Amino acid sequence: MKSQIKRTFSNFFFEYETPRQVLVRNKRVAVVCRIIQMGVLAYIIGWVFMYEKGYQIVDIAISSIFTKMKGVSFTNISEKERIWDAADYVFPEQGDSSFVVMTNYIATVGQKQDKCPELPDGKNKCTSDAHCDEGKYKRMGNGHMTGRCINDTSTCEIYSWCPVEDDRKIPDPPVLLTAENYTLFIKNSITFRQFNVVRSNLVESVNQSYINTCLYHPKTDPLCPIFRLGDIVERSGFSFSEIARVGGAIGVLIDWDCNLDLSIRHCKPKYEFYGLYGTGKNEDKEEKPSLGYNFRYAKYYVENGVEKRTLMKVFGVRIDIIVHGRAGKFDIIPTLTAIGSGVGIFGVATVVCDMLLLYLVSKRDFYKNMKFKHTEIGEEKPALPQSKTERDLPKVTYH
Amino acid sequence: MKSQIKRTFSNFFFEYETPRQVLVRNKRVAVVCRIIQMGVLAYIIGWVFMYEKGYQIVDIAISSIFTKMKGVSFTNISEKERIWDAADYVFPEQGDSSFVVMTNYIATVGQKQDKCPELPDGKNKCTSDAHCDEGKYKRMGNGHMTGRCINDTSTCEIYSWCPVEDDRKIPDPPVLLTAENYTLFIKNSITFRQFNVVRSNLVESVNQSYINTCLYHPKTDPLCPIFRLGDIVERSGFSFSEIARVGGAIGVLIDWDCNLDLSIRHCKPKYEFYGLYGTGKNEDKEEKPSLGYNFRYAKYYVENGVEKRTLMKVFGVRIDIIVHGRAGKFDIIPTLTAIGSGVGIFGVATVVCDMLLLYLVSKRDFYKNMKFKHTEIGEEKPALPQSKTERDLPKVTYH
Amino acid sequence: MKSQIKRTFSNFFFEYETPRQVLVRNKRVAVVCRIIQMGVLAYIIGWVFMYEKGYQIVDIAISSIFTKMKGVSFTNISEKERIWDAADYVFPEQGDSSFVVMTNYIATVGQKQDKCPELPDGKNKCTSDAHCDEGKYKRMGNGHMTGRCINDTSTCEIYSWCPVEDDRKIPDPPVLLTAENYTLFIKNSITFRQFNVVRSNLVESVNQSYINTCLYHPKTDPLCPIFRLGDIVERSGFSFSEIARVGGAIGVLIDWDCNLDLSIRHCKPKYEFYGLYGTGKNEDKEEKPSLGYNFRYAKYYVENGVEKRTLMKVFGVRIDIIVHGRAGKFDIIPTLTAIGSGVGIFGVATVVCDMLLLYLVSKRDFYKNMKFKHTEIGEEKPALPQSKTERDLPKVTYH
Repeated sequence: MKSQIKRTFSNFFFEYETPRQVLVRNKRVAVVCRIIQMGVLAYIIGWVFMYEKGYQIVDIAISSIFTKMKGVSFTNISEKERIWDAADYVFPEQGDSSFVVMTNYIATVGQKQDKCPELPDGKNKCTSDAHCDEGKYKRMGNGHMTGRCINDTSTCEIYSWCPVEDDRKIPDPPVLLTAENYTLFIKNSITFRQFNVVRSNLVESVNQSYINTCLYHPKTDPLCPIFRLGDIVERSGFSFSEIARVGGAIGVLIDWDCNLDLSIRHCKPKYEFYGLYGTGKNEDKEEKPSLGYNFRYAKYYVENGVEKRTLMKVFGVRIDIIVHGRAGKFDIIPTLTAIGSGVGIFGVATVVCDMLLLYLVSKRDFYKNMKFKHTEIGEEKPALPQSKTERDLPKVTYH
Repeated sequence: MKSQIKRTFSNFFFEYETPRQVLVRNKRVAVVCRIIQMGVLAYIIGWVFMYEKGYQIVDIAISSIFTKMKGVSFTNISEKERIWDAADYVFPEQGDSSFVVMTNYIATVGQKQDKCPELPDGKNKCTSDAHCDEGKYKRMGNGHMTGRCINDTSTCEIYSWCPVEDDRKIPDPPVLLTAENYTLFIKNSITFRQFNVVRSNLVESVNQSYINTCLYHPKTDPLCPIFRLGDIVERSGFSFSEIARVGGAIGVLIDWDCNLDLSIRHCKPKYEFYGLYGTGKNEDKEEKPSLGYNFRYAKYYVENGVEKRTLMKVFGVRIDIIVHGRAGKFDIIPTLTAIGSGVGIFGVATVVCDMLLLYLVSKRDFYKNMKFKHTEIGEEKPALPQSKTERDLPKVTYH
Repeated sequence: MKSQIKRTFSNFFFEYETPRQVLVRNKRVAVVCRIIQMGVLAYIIGWVFMYEKGYQIVDIAISSIFTKMKGVSFTNISEKERIWDAADYVFPEQGDSSFVVMTNYIATVGQKQDKCPELPDGKNKCTSDAHCDEGKYKRMGNGHMTGRCINDTSTCEIYSWCPVEDDRKIPDPPVLLTAENYTLFIKNSITFRQFNVVRSNLVESVNQSYINTCLYHPKTDPLCPIFRLGDIVERSGFSFSEIARVGGAIGVLIDWDCNLDLSIRHCKPKYEFYGLYGTGKNEDKEEKPSLGYNFRYAKYYVENGVEKRTLMKVFGVRIDIIVHGRAGKFDIIPTLTAIGSGVGIFGVATVVCDMLLLYLVSKRDFYKNMKFKHTEIGEEKPALPQSKTERDLPKVTYH
């Protein structure tokens, strides 16, 4: 028993099996086959390894963004001069990755809790009190109906912040058209956890003196982190005067595609700009719902003991900064997986070649004969014990 | 030398090797083997290719969201009527993907910097001045202790915004219970960078007139981007009256699972709602810490030269809109990788069949004999030079 | 014809092919070969399966975060005592995943729309009116130039919010240095969509009474969701007094690496802290641009009918909470893909062994002879029909 195990063990270790093969000397088949094999090899080396970098593991960045707008606008509305700076026109103020730059607004000053007629904008018509259910609220309305229909405006009276905001006419040209010249400074930090790499968009060539003077340009200053608002808008396919009037949303994509097998210095951001929600250049011109971008906010104050508010309907450029970070680095696992898959595909090549050989070539029966050996159950000559066969029969005639 | 290279080259190109095989005519083994092979084939075609779409590359969307709440609430607190609109109850106001809708609040009007006793809520008891270290601050306290213990309240005197907010009793029913009828409009734009596809949740069938009247319903209006707040809350497993009182957080998931091999029109969003932080339907009923959702903010003003503030403790529904976008498209690399792996698994099938044949079948020695040829070192008949062998010996008896 | 199909079918089902192999009894080659094969096996089992868990599918979490700061600061600036609580020092107030804790500020009280000279900070010098183009705006300036050069300050007169903010000197020590003792409470909910798993950072061992008293410490309290601001700052490599003065940005990473094949109770968060934008510990000490973190916001009010504002330049600690959630679970597809690739790599091992055998071993010609059979076009003895050959020729001499 022990010697049995020993022999099995020694057989396993000192013997190894390798497939027996036929060398087919057939020009047509061989050439086709070699071309297929070389195609597979070229695909594995060229595409999987070199183009797609299949030998790398990939990590997606986690990122953090800080933004700062600069610039002032000067307006002169009904003889009232006014200057607007970043604290006045950026929402929210603390430098988020998503923010709105106000370019136009409708201010409704001095609203207070009161009764007043609805806006006669066609959506809230009434001809008698019966149309105005007391205590009810209409989806398009601004407050709770008191039950009266006001003759002057042909609209229901409501309990609301009065007077009701009149947003039927959007100021044109936009109030803050000079917003075009504001500048946006973006600080972006990305972290590739898997590779323990931290990187900022203020790369080696971007120093303090460069930042003080530069302005982003895709050709001449592709790494300058300071952007002119007008440029952002135009690169994303909008016209500034249009977006400034009704608002719009723009995505600023910071694209990092880093090959960490090279020096970290080559890991640089690329900035792209595109319109969101279907008004940008990538979209068809067909009518789309909900263009524009606006929101309302209120400034509250107390006047003579009555709470009042100034309601602002703000139109503006919303900027969403989106980071798309991806880094690859050599790793043995994907390399071996790619090689393994490649060998598998080589197997497919062999199968294809064999089909050629066995089904399409004129001498196919000859080749079949060479390749296959048949065993039939019920043959009169059963197998001799292997060891005996091997040793007793002369090698030349039996193998 | 040159002719040597030439011959090697011509050998390589005009000859190809294919494994020699034994055709085993054994019903049991063959049937088992074919079943295994067909299982592998079915798995590769059915599961990897059709179900998991292994022939596609996958891209994850980058997305951008804009939200807008509509609706008004009417309250009548101690004879004071008041209307609340979106500018009053949404935080922050500019339409972020994460925001809070106020449903309840505790207002502390007219706080100013002063000395006053701590709230007698059981956490800040004292019986003598010795318990109140001057200048120190307690983790559960609201200000810096002055060193005095106030007899009336049995709490330390503190320097703080006074009077201290009393949040021991949360208004019940919630002040803004009608928030149930507010509507939320969501605009979502997604970008599949790799495929250069931009898509909005306002898909082809969602036009302006539909938006004006529709309301989301999972069965009848699954694409309407307008949601009733009460519906969102109930679909996520909360009771509205409960969440409105103490607040809560809800995730709205916009799920895009797009097959870009089909028309882009089939790429549509699916909306799902679930409770966050463990109060939703997916969680057990066991007691969990930190239910509810609230935050404080202050409105500052100056009265008779003294800076004051109104502190609001806001309870509300926090809505986090989360986008999960995934698109697949045919690509040659994953297709070949899947095929390669499949061929590999085919190899496993062959190994299993061989084991059956060589170890379990009664005639195993016969088959072993067919399959294997032995070479032994020390054989008396060493190999002749290959070329010679090939040419000189008669083919039939030696090959 | 029918019988033909039938026979092909029966052949296919009752016959199976298996490669013929040579058993090479050569110690050196066999041992090398077995070592290579066992290395491949060890790699597949040990590395791919056990270490990298190649048998699992992976899902990335979608997550939601709520934060709450607690703590008060006491300041005494020019005899004016003041207490600061969370409503005063957190921006934005509603508990976002990204927020700023004010630690220092420059307040410019009572700005109004007026004409005043630019700040004499060296960037806006003038010696005559000619340097001050009327109506123009300088990139480093604060308003529109009126065309006059003011002698006292040697700067242009501008139309702006006056007086202009003087931020040349940042308060040192920072005004709110006691911010070090504020605490941050983080609630984080993650969802693994693919596995239908929802999980909160308030795991089983974190109950209400624990939360009331605990404070995060990497060793003793690694799951406590309450963090001291000073600890966060120091763990991320900053000095608190430095960051408090000029501001800075810190990333708090919540890392979930869950193996869902085990009990869900083992799925726990890990907290990490690091400096963003290049001032943290992972960065070199070389000078980097744009250190610090600050933003401006304004509080508006009306005094004697004139709109005024208090402009705050806020320096603070910006905290970005980033969630990195990843869960793996056994799945048949990646398991089979890994096995398939592994078999492929086994094939590579065989190729390497064959090269050894056929090119490096001294008896290589003998082995070549064993392994390969040649077929030559133009042989005088063409292939007999397969069936005939098999049956008529004696097995021993021809097979």
